[in-house]
Amino acid sequence: MINQTIMIQEELQRKINNRTKPLGSLGKLEKLALKIGTVQNTLTPELKNPAILVFAADHGIVDEGVSPCPKEITWQMVMNFVRGGAGINVFSRQHNIRLRVIDAGVDYDFPAGCNVENRKLARGTRNMMHEPAMSTELCRQAMDKGAECVRQEFERGCNIIGFGEMGIGNTSPASLLLHKFAGIPLDECVGRGAGLNEEGVQHKYNVLKQVAAKYNPRTPLETLATFGGLEIAMICGGVLEAKRLNMLIIADGFIASSGFLTAYEMQPDVLDNVIFSHASNEHGHKAMVEYMKGDPVLHLDLRLGEGTGVALAYPVLQSALLFLNEMASFEDAAVFDVEKNR
Amino acid sequence: MINQTIMIQEELQRKINNRTKPLGSLGKLEKLALKIGTVQNTLTPELKNPAILVFAADHGIVDEGVSPCPKEITWQMVMNFVRGGAGINVFSRQHNIRLRVIDAGVDYDFPAGCNVENRKLARGTRNMMHEPAMSTELCRQAMDKGAECVRQEFERGCNIIGFGEMGIGNTSPASLLLHKFAGIPLDECVGRGAGLNEEGVQHKYNVLKQVAAKYNPRTPLETLATFGGLEIAMICGGVLEAKRLNMLIIADGFIASSGFLTAYEMQPDVLDNVIFSHASNEHGHKAMVEYMKGDPVLHLDLRLGEGTGVALAYPVLQSALLFLNEMASFEDAAVFDVEKNR
Repeated sequence: MINQTIMIQEELQRKINNRTKPLGSLGKLEKLALKIGTVQNTLTPELKNPAILVFAADHGIVDEGVSPCPKEITWQMVMNFVRGGAGINVFSRQHNIRLRVIDAGVDYDFPAGCNVENRKLARGTRNMMHEPAMSTELCRQAMDKGAECVRQEFERGCNIIGFGEMGIGNTSPASLLLHKFAGIPLDECVGRGAGLNEEGVQHKYNVLKQVAAKYNPRTPLETLATFGGLEIAMICGGVLEAKRLNMLIIADGFIASSGFLTAYEMQPDVLDNVIFSHASNEHGHKAMVEYMKGDPVLHLDLRLGEGTGVALAYPVLQSALLFLNEMASFEDAAVFDVEKNR
Repeated sequence: MINQTIMIQEELQRKINNRTKPLGSLGKLEKLALKIGTVQNTLTPELKNPAILVFAADHGIVDEGVSPCPKEITWQMVMNFVRGGAGINVFSRQHNIRLRVIDAGVDYDFPAGCNVENRKLARGTRNMMHEPAMSTELCRQAMDKGAECVRQEFERGCNIIGFGEMGIGNTSPASLLLHKFAGIPLDECVGRGAGLNEEGVQHKYNVLKQVAAKYNPRTPLETLATFGGLEIAMICGGVLEAKRLNMLIIADGFIASSGFLTAYEMQPDVLDNVIFSHASNEHGHKAMVEYMKGDPVLHLDLRLGEGTGVALAYPVLQSALLFLNEMASFEDAAVFDVEKNR
């Protein structure tokens, strides 16, 4: 398997170098072409039936005043998603990406027939100031639900899947997961979320500091259950399943990436298939991506979530494969190859 | 006019802030929407009939060994463009961008009927080690040719135009223009181009240092004529014309941007309409963009030229307008507006 990987990498690199352009001049596009070709084990990789799964859930920790937003915005935004008015709708329509909106645990009863997929396991997590966010059993169930969603996409012929999220208060679990897994000081993990001022960030930090000190989970699953969220657990389970199915797995911003981080702690080789769509402006995301040795595609100062970074980066991934598959070689174009003649 | 600009900016910012997302969370997309809406003086801006003009020319300075490539690659790549096999072909096809390939001064007779537009004014510039690259008269003619090309696109209904280039040796004129216009030390302006090694960069620097010391042009036009290239002059003239026609003007990498830099020296307000598509990996580009207070859309470590960065950034510009025009407002989506209720 390792030999096969090295072989295809070498062949891909030769093909990349032989396109009519100065060596390495397509920068990150070349790295993306190499990565995607390696995952698909082919010199002519393709992106098929792309999908973005947006998992939504509520968070008990919101009771501690860690967000500037009332938690009702979670369900209101979910309704906005299914009506087509949110950022993720606009960008996934633009690039013909299939969008699924999944209720992972929102504290609201969505009207029947409204296109929100009901995978609700609870009406949000518990307040981790007082008790773990989830039991490990509930957390495991959420991971399974996420895996199930991914499997459905795979069966529809999808080979590239992105993950987004919606959940008022969910930068808090993401910060705690980063702090616990990566060992990064908590203050470097806590940011403004949906728009806290400095005082608000300080309060959020004080709350999360108490929460972090309260528990000592021993495994990644326990850590996820203690500090995570239902949407983060579904993303984590989805990432692991997508890796099992050898799909390309695209991360969005800080919160979605915390699901990737958890999956990485459980199974480090998931990263072979992961692409980070963008460098978020949320404090802590940079450290999170660096911890996973990622190299984000876009740098647009986004901090919206919903999977928007995935959708925005998608055309760049397409470009990476188009140059690999459609550009002429030096021979075919009868262009002098400087590197071969050095 | 200034009042009108401020008014539309305020209205646009209100519209941006009222889309269903945390304030400012679409980062650079919001700045792009604001800029494009301001240029078009409307709350519902649109991109129409996008075009990329690729100007190709040869350079006398290549005789001094400043490039690792033989100058025949210029015409060979132009033929590759019109046959559809180059990077710019692939990316402009991907995004339905009209591509024009213009012979601004290539030292080659292209076969009749091959889709290279003949605007050749000379078979390349003269070797500026010995004499100015162009006379001011020739330079002025080249600017006019560039303007003419832009006018044709405008008349076809195009309101967004990008500029690319091809020309072995043309990082040398770009470096000299940056050095002269921005007053940046020459060694910070000279880079690897199509792939020089360290020794090659040192030689290129030594050559350009002599050239820089040799002349003292007094006006931007004289500077362009002395140190520029025919493709750079056509880009410069094209940028000025596009500004006159109030089009959006998209810069590519180091060399194309040196045409923008020259236009900026001649008429600073061109920048109102300019978007820098990407931060190139070519040494000097960062300083060049900073000098013009630009904020590049993409950071993909490209250094290919041809207008490739323009094509790759295009979907992001579309996204900026799509969110502005298609996202729901807080009222329409019945989502609680935190900012209004602070």
